Amino acid sequence: MARVTTSPTFKRLPRAVREQQMLDAAVRVFSRRGFHAASMDEIAEDAGISKPMVYAYLGTKEELFIACLHREGTRLMEAIVAGVGTDLPPDEQLWRGLRAFFGFVGAHRDGWAVLYRQARAQQPFAGALATMRERMVEVIGTMLAQALAAEGREIRDMDLEVMAYALVGASESLADWLADRPDADPDKTATRMMNFAWVGAGQLLHGETWPPAPLSP
Amino acid sequence: MARVTTSPTFKRLPRAVREQQMLDAAVRVFSRRGFHAASMDEIAEDAGISKPMVYAYLGTKEELFIACLHREGTRLMEAIVAGVGTDLPPDEQLWRGLRAFFGFVGAHRDGWAVLYRQARAQQPFAGALATMRERMVEVIGTMLAQALAAEGREIRDMDLEVMAYALVGASESLADWLADRPDADPDKTATRMMNFAWVGAGQLLHGETWPPAPLSP
Repeated sequence: MARVTTSPTFKRLPRAVREQQMLDAAVRVFSRRGFHAASMDEIAEDAGISKPMVYAYLGTKEELFIACLHREGTRLMEAIVAGVGTDLPPDEQLWRGLRAFFGFVGAHRDGWAVLYRQARAQQPFAGALATMRERMVEVIGTMLAQALAAEGREIRDMDLEVMAYALVGASESLADWLADRPDADPDKTATRMMNFAWVGAGQLLHGETWPPAPLSP
Repeated sequence: MARVTTSPTFKRLPRAVREQQMLDAAVRVFSRRGFHAASMDEIAEDAGISKPMVYAYLGTKEELFIACLHREGTRLMEAIVAGVGTDLPPDEQLWRGLRAFFGFVGAHRDGWAVLYRQARAQQPFAGALATMRERMVEVIGTMLAQALAAEGREIRDMDLEVMAYALVGASESLADWLADRPDADPDKTATRMMNFAWVGAGQLLHGETWPPAPLSP
């Protein structure tokens, strides 16, 4: 999300590029001000685009916020899926997924704190967030099922679904924890979550950790 | 939360009893209507108390909602702590805590779906809910630390804190799952969560479960 500067040839930019510029600006302004205090004037100015153009492209402030939420959520899921490598065993996939997730949150603490929490705490956006969460559960469930199938193993759909919900809930909770602690290390947080999720509290409390052998690079 | 009927001697009831009646009525009406559609008239009528009296005792609709949230959250934590038995080993404590938690949610699906989700999805209540969540993290962290200390073991505070956050997040996520599924069994959900949290995904995916020996009654 590098800052895009307004160039003299701006008017010739294709629609998709302009939209991304507006969304970049909107994420910055929402993160800085919060949803309620953010103004369309400031978003337009930050994007270097006229306010009517912002409305024309992306609609009202509410619609713009949902578009931001959707784009950031999609980026997050892309980062996870891209980081995972679907030919790896389940634990490696989970570990890489968690590292990608907490790395993303750690690199966008403001975005997480503001976008995610504001979305969660405002009636009109809670539905959009619930949909993103369902997608995340699907992504994780599917990846785990494929990794198991590749090893010739199976788990009941219901157990897999419950595990995916638990993973998503635990990860969200720790992402909040991470976003509130500027000094906390995203990779260490991912390691703690991996230990909890993979090894389980029973063995963790007895001092065992994941992985049993050194992690491949 | 048995329905309290209005008796002719109502006016002689002590303040604390009246407050509980109003809260019972408010929980029912908020669960039935949702926060926005719920009216103070309906709550007063349901409680068999005049509307000015409801305002006098518990304040505005917002304050009443926060009072409901606070009471239900406190009841939930009481149910967990009472169910746990602090002289038991950590896994028994966790199992009993989870069973109490999912039992509570299963017995109050509407309350969970409406109170908890509405609280989460409305700016003025999100702060109150975050405070309840912090208390829950403290309760779980303290119980686990005591159970470990009783066995002469220790875990670093940071690891315990992260584990408590992960447990709370995973449990909230599965409580949502349970509240949406009237046919899902609370005890089975507690078992699934226990397996995830204690045994870990690594062994679960290989078919191992908790407990290793039959559970004591």
